[in-house]
Amino acid sequence: MKKVLAINSGSSSFKYKLFSLPDEKVVASGMADRVGIDGSTFELKLADGSKHVDEVDIPDQETAVKLLLKNLQKYNVVEDLSEIAGVGHRIVAGGEDFPESTIIDEEKLQKIYDLVDYAPLHNGAEADGIKAFMGVLPDVPQIGVFDTSFHQSLDPVRYLYPIPYEYYEKYKARKYGAHGTSARYILNRTSELLHKDPKDIKLISCHLGSGASITAIKDGKSFDTSMGFSPLAGIMMATRSGDVDPSLLNYVMKKENMTMDQMIDILNNKSGLLGVSGISPDMRDLKHSKDKRAILAREMFVNRVVRCIGAYYADMGGVDVIVFTAGIGEHDKRVRRDVMKALEFMGVDPDFEANETNGEKTITKPDSKIRVMIVPTNEELEIERDVVRLAKLD
Amino acid sequence: MKKVLAINSGSSSFKYKLFSLPDEKVVASGMADRVGIDGSTFELKLADGSKHVDEVDIPDQETAVKLLLKNLQKYNVVEDLSEIAGVGHRIVAGGEDFPESTIIDEEKLQKIYDLVDYAPLHNGAEADGIKAFMGVLPDVPQIGVFDTSFHQSLDPVRYLYPIPYEYYEKYKARKYGAHGTSARYILNRTSELLHKDPKDIKLISCHLGSGASITAIKDGKSFDTSMGFSPLAGIMMATRSGDVDPSLLNYVMKKENMTMDQMIDILNNKSGLLGVSGISPDMRDLKHSKDKRAILAREMFVNRVVRCIGAYYADMGGVDVIVFTAGIGEHDKRVRRDVMKALEFMGVDPDFEANETNGEKTITKPDSKIRVMIVPTNEELEIERDVVRLAKLD
Repeated sequence: MKKVLAINSGSSSFKYKLFSLPDEKVVASGMADRVGIDGSTFELKLADGSKHVDEVDIPDQETAVKLLLKNLQKYNVVEDLSEIAGVGHRIVAGGEDFPESTIIDEEKLQKIYDLVDYAPLHNGAEADGIKAFMGVLPDVPQIGVFDTSFHQSLDPVRYLYPIPYEYYEKYKARKYGAHGTSARYILNRTSELLHKDPKDIKLISCHLGSGASITAIKDGKSFDTSMGFSPLAGIMMATRSGDVDPSLLNYVMKKENMTMDQMIDILNNKSGLLGVSGISPDMRDLKHSKDKRAILAREMFVNRVVRCIGAYYADMGGVDVIVFTAGIGEHDKRVRRDVMKALEFMGVDPDFEANETNGEKTITKPDSKIRVMIVPTNEELEIERDVVRLAKLD
Repeated sequence: MKKVLAINSGSSSFKYKLFSLPDEKVVASGMADRVGIDGSTFELKLADGSKHVDEVDIPDQETAVKLLLKNLQKYNVVEDLSEIAGVGHRIVAGGEDFPESTIIDEEKLQKIYDLVDYAPLHNGAEADGIKAFMGVLPDVPQIGVFDTSFHQSLDPVRYLYPIPYEYYEKYKARKYGAHGTSARYILNRTSELLHKDPKDIKLISCHLGSGASITAIKDGKSFDTSMGFSPLAGIMMATRSGDVDPSLLNYVMKKENMTMDQMIDILNNKSGLLGVSGISPDMRDLKHSKDKRAILAREMFVNRVVRCIGAYYADMGGVDVIVFTAGIGEHDKRVRRDVMKALEFMGVDPDFEANETNGEKTITKPDSKIRVMIVPTNEELEIERDVVRLAKLD
């Protein structure tokens, strides 16, 4: 039976899911953790729920790939590696070079390396992952699925920054967005659930995880998205600030005697929910806290989501469906409730009872002018489908 | 007859208006230009329309103040300087120290100097102006009217940035906004025109000039505003960028081998309409241009205004009146038209004919769910009124 791997390599991790075809079932999943760092582990979860974790030295992506293939055989997930008919790789930055998912050859692989400036922590590791697979499975198509591709439909009015135009011409300094694969899955899944053509829904997808972004979708395409040149921009996140007045950065840098690199590090890793609360970057740790700053962090988060929805509502000329997805979106009923309450005046008629529990469903009343839904995202499934389509496995 | 001066000192300029009491008529106005720079001039305009310009050396604010007082006597605007019963000064940055307009004594003057970090180009010159007046008119009350005061009503949810909280505690790093005196005037004037209590209007004031900001007003108070720690933030402006992904700045700085100070200078002076169009920072130069980038700059400007209105619409739970003011807001019918068109779906029913001409009026149809108005701003009049009130001149 043919199978497809979906790979998500981070700077020091390597997550995978193995799907069987044509039923799209996940037959194995797991991750290599602390790749290139002491104390690395390899984990394999099987469809029956069993889990195997090895403490093993994993110096690089290639070792991780080899371990994965070895374990898939060892635990009889595949009888022969030839069952793996395609591998899909999530790539954070595709720049303007990758407006859609594509089969990766040597030339395209180099382009992914070249885009490292756009995603310093990710693109290199992801390209290493592809290279490793090319080495061990030379005859299997490797497909790149880019976080940015879905947003390549943005109009220049929305993707350009009001800065000197030459920075765009010389350095492609513009908005690329992220979470595009998630937004695409959400659009497809929501259309399916509502029995509508994706082109006929004005959708706002609130991908609220540790990284959080909001995407406005119109005519079946990404219309605007809150992340920017990098995934630092947009709304407040777990540890990321989102948009900040550049003058404030300069002011704080001088007070703290910091370089811009240090400031960016703080905006990426010490800001957001963590920075405001001083307690945790995790909404689960904050949601029942009575600490003043924990409450403030929650309220700020909700506020930024509401404001961003309002901005896209005005810019799209309305919205039919608002979707909550990812960690917070799928699991934090209070965030969903507070956002919906703020939007009641716009025609959101919340079904607070439905909102009390999680899972794929509508959480507004049947006559609500704007429908609000929970749709758990599934980027790996979208990757798997791109592999099936591009490698012609169906 | 008693008179009140309203002063607006810039880094190298000094604008003034002299009001007679109690009729609030402008009996003289003008400016000292190129203060501290070669080729400085002093200009005085009289109520009869006549204008007197002198080319004269003006090395500092004190010289400008003395020239003003000399010319007011020379052209018989005042018979005796004792007619000047109070002087109001526009101050850009009041920080958290000045939640409202106040009479300035030595201690408060020092505080204005101390806030120079918050408005490097303005606060020093403005404080110099006050100091000069204290010297030459020692018995006349000097009133500080702060651009930031009106926004001190913001909730921490809206004035804090999602950055480490200690930066607020240590350095008061937060949103202060600007154009507060304009927003306050707009609120008061709009309420007057609509015969309503200012507390009963949800208003969005679009102050679209060379500097541009949008303020949401609810319960008679500033609810949120688009400028941030500094007047660089928020929407796109003539030469200012507004909000930009901080990572993009770091990326461009490295490519161009620039310091953060240089980057901030570019974001303040080479960005916005100028940066995108490459032609001009002035909407009047762009509005009839068929140049692709001029059109793009205009569209981006309108887009940022629409998005910001949408954000505040959602956050306030609706809006009763949207006001256009300042240079572009008062004079660019195409910007107004394009913004209104984008908001038609929300219940803005534009009166396109009324919009064709400028002046204080409503530019939506009588049954429009959301009213849109042009209200020319008048910060000097608001300053004059603060002087009258605080110096007890009525």
